[in-house]
Amino acid sequence: MWVCGKLLGQLRRGLLPVSGRRWSAAASYSASAEPSRVRALVYGDHGHPAKVVELKNLELTAVGGSDVHVKMLAAPVNPSDINMIQGNYGILPKLPAVGGNEGVGQVVAVGSSVTRVKPGDLVILGTAGLGTWRTEAVFSEEALVAVPSDIPLQSAATLAVNPCTAYRMLMDFEQLKPGDSVIQNASNSGVGQAVIQIAAALGLRTVNVVRDRPDLQKLTDRLKGLGAEHVITEEELRKPEMKNLFKDMPQPRLALNCVGGKSSTELLRCLAPRGTMVTYGGMAKQPVTVPVSLLIFKDLKLRGFWMSQWKTDHSPDQFKELIFTLCDFIRRGQLTAPACSEVPLQDHQRALESSMQPFVSTKQVFTM
Amino acid sequence: MWVCGKLLGQLRRGLLPVSGRRWSAAASYSASAEPSRVRALVYGDHGHPAKVVELKNLELTAVGGSDVHVKMLAAPVNPSDINMIQGNYGILPKLPAVGGNEGVGQVVAVGSSVTRVKPGDLVILGTAGLGTWRTEAVFSEEALVAVPSDIPLQSAATLAVNPCTAYRMLMDFEQLKPGDSVIQNASNSGVGQAVIQIAAALGLRTVNVVRDRPDLQKLTDRLKGLGAEHVITEEELRKPEMKNLFKDMPQPRLALNCVGGKSSTELLRCLAPRGTMVTYGGMAKQPVTVPVSLLIFKDLKLRGFWMSQWKTDHSPDQFKELIFTLCDFIRRGQLTAPACSEVPLQDHQRALESSMQPFVSTKQVFTM
Repeated sequence: MWVCGKLLGQLRRGLLPVSGRRWSAAASYSASAEPSRVRALVYGDHGHPAKVVELKNLELTAVGGSDVHVKMLAAPVNPSDINMIQGNYGILPKLPAVGGNEGVGQVVAVGSSVTRVKPGDLVILGTAGLGTWRTEAVFSEEALVAVPSDIPLQSAATLAVNPCTAYRMLMDFEQLKPGDSVIQNASNSGVGQAVIQIAAALGLRTVNVVRDRPDLQKLTDRLKGLGAEHVITEEELRKPEMKNLFKDMPQPRLALNCVGGKSSTELLRCLAPRGTMVTYGGMAKQPVTVPVSLLIFKDLKLRGFWMSQWKTDHSPDQFKELIFTLCDFIRRGQLTAPACSEVPLQDHQRALESSMQPFVSTKQVFTM
Repeated sequence: MWVCGKLLGQLRRGLLPVSGRRWSAAASYSASAEPSRVRALVYGDHGHPAKVVELKNLELTAVGGSDVHVKMLAAPVNPSDINMIQGNYGILPKLPAVGGNEGVGQVVAVGSSVTRVKPGDLVILGTAGLGTWRTEAVFSEEALVAVPSDIPLQSAATLAVNPCTAYRMLMDFEQLKPGDSVIQNASNSGVGQAVIQIAAALGLRTVNVVRDRPDLQKLTDRLKGLGAEHVITEEELRKPEMKNLFKDMPQPRLALNCVGGKSSTELLRCLAPRGTMVTYGGMAKQPVTVPVSLLIFKDLKLRGFWMSQWKTDHSPDQFKELIFTLCDFIRRGQLTAPACSEVPLQDHQRALESSMQPFVSTKQVFTM
């Protein structure tokens, strides 16, 4: 895996703990009357991300009693960020809005009533829609979760959406035990890679579907390196020989679908009777199509998962507990961040275009 | 509702309780060496029901210790019987097989170890695939449930499949309380009519989708007479004005789908967030198509229901309890049998053709 060198470099250059020299001006900001200049990726209309997103200067809002002034360090481009800018998402911020829904930053200063984070803490965003693609921001204390300082920065930056989604989907729909199997499509996505790793850590066996591509063997090797038991193409998934796969491993009781269309129907056909398919994305832009007989005679269950909804339904402490569980996987070497390409904010057009290309295996991460 | 006159006539002519004169020969059958002649509707191959089903003479098998000799009185033609003959069903009997999966009969004689039924009892079949379209049969004691003699014969004949399916779907997927609403398609089917009546008895409000037809007003009046709150056509279901319906009643938390295709997608759009659609049939012969956003952002759940599977998963006593619960609805006048057309076994071709015609509102019931 390619290591995000610049981010690690930032850490090593003393961003943690906060050096008095580097942060003193900002740390005293809340007591200062001078507004700080913030650079941010802003969109005023929904549309094609590379066209509607612009780099702008914003003024930092005042730090109220329960607010936290955060210097952003890194914020990835996730598929849901793209959907949100396009206007195709379950929640949409008021426009103009700053792009990005997750990221990691360092606390610069805190309001008088803030108790859960302190200057110098590494924090990630626990709430979607606040805009993370910016150099600095003032967030409400409740929106932040302090993460341990021994977690790699690229892992922290990409922890709140994809690994959380992967872990919850593996835990909340079927009671799986070691040796059980799981099938997924879009296995090279951020969630897909997290599913492979967390499943392996839990003793679950995975069948991982990917789109055919020129460098398939390389991808297969990489996913197997993460813990994937089988890596197969969408075309192989549709062949009758697929059933031979389940002579040597139990039929999956859980399928994770980020594609929709034919791919999702084939996942359903692979499921064990009474199994569940959880849909969390629709990359093919086609609905999930379910043969009636699979519902009636095979008693399959179809569900959906949306991490934002999970957070709404659970307390901040429960989210924090989830983050700490994932940090334990990271510390044990069982969960690594996806390969990432660091991009400065001004190169947003290139980053947004890249994030929408097929077969791009690295995640675009804005670094500030 | 049209009353099955001949069946009631049979009852009144003293079939219940068993008259010594009428049943004495049959009642002593198990002690006799002479095999009885049975007429039965038999199919030797899967195919078009009106073509593959023939009226044949069979010999009655011997009555073993745990067996029950039953004189069949009435047995309906259900959609699942048709699917089974066509070979499109979750379980298929060994061929040649006698058609029909439910029905009511009267016990003629019992084997030495039988304790739960006695000669003269009215019994219904609790197990599918045994073949009810015949004049007499020997069934295992476990396959039978004695039903109270005050239940109308046409209700008893049609109790084990459709009302059971309707009741379980209303009870087992969402915790509904009086005032909650339910939406269904195929509302004029056997299950559909039972759903309307049981829902009304439970204080649930129903939106009932039917196909447009020349006598729509007549059908609407009839379903409203059963307790339907709204009766709408498939075309009305697709109109944006549908949402006005839910200004005066809560959005349904449960949808019951017997159609598939577009109809099922529209049911999903009407569901309240986190609601469940249960599929129990696929009359349109098209898969259920689910927009990905309804799974992810609306958290809808898709399930299937098959009464045969429910019976496999539950004890005979639990099935008996279910039958008795439904008998209570019947006694209170809250659940009536669908309008039926009585057909003698020899007119099977006409009955099977009729049962497959669209817009036929009466259920074909073989009487012996």
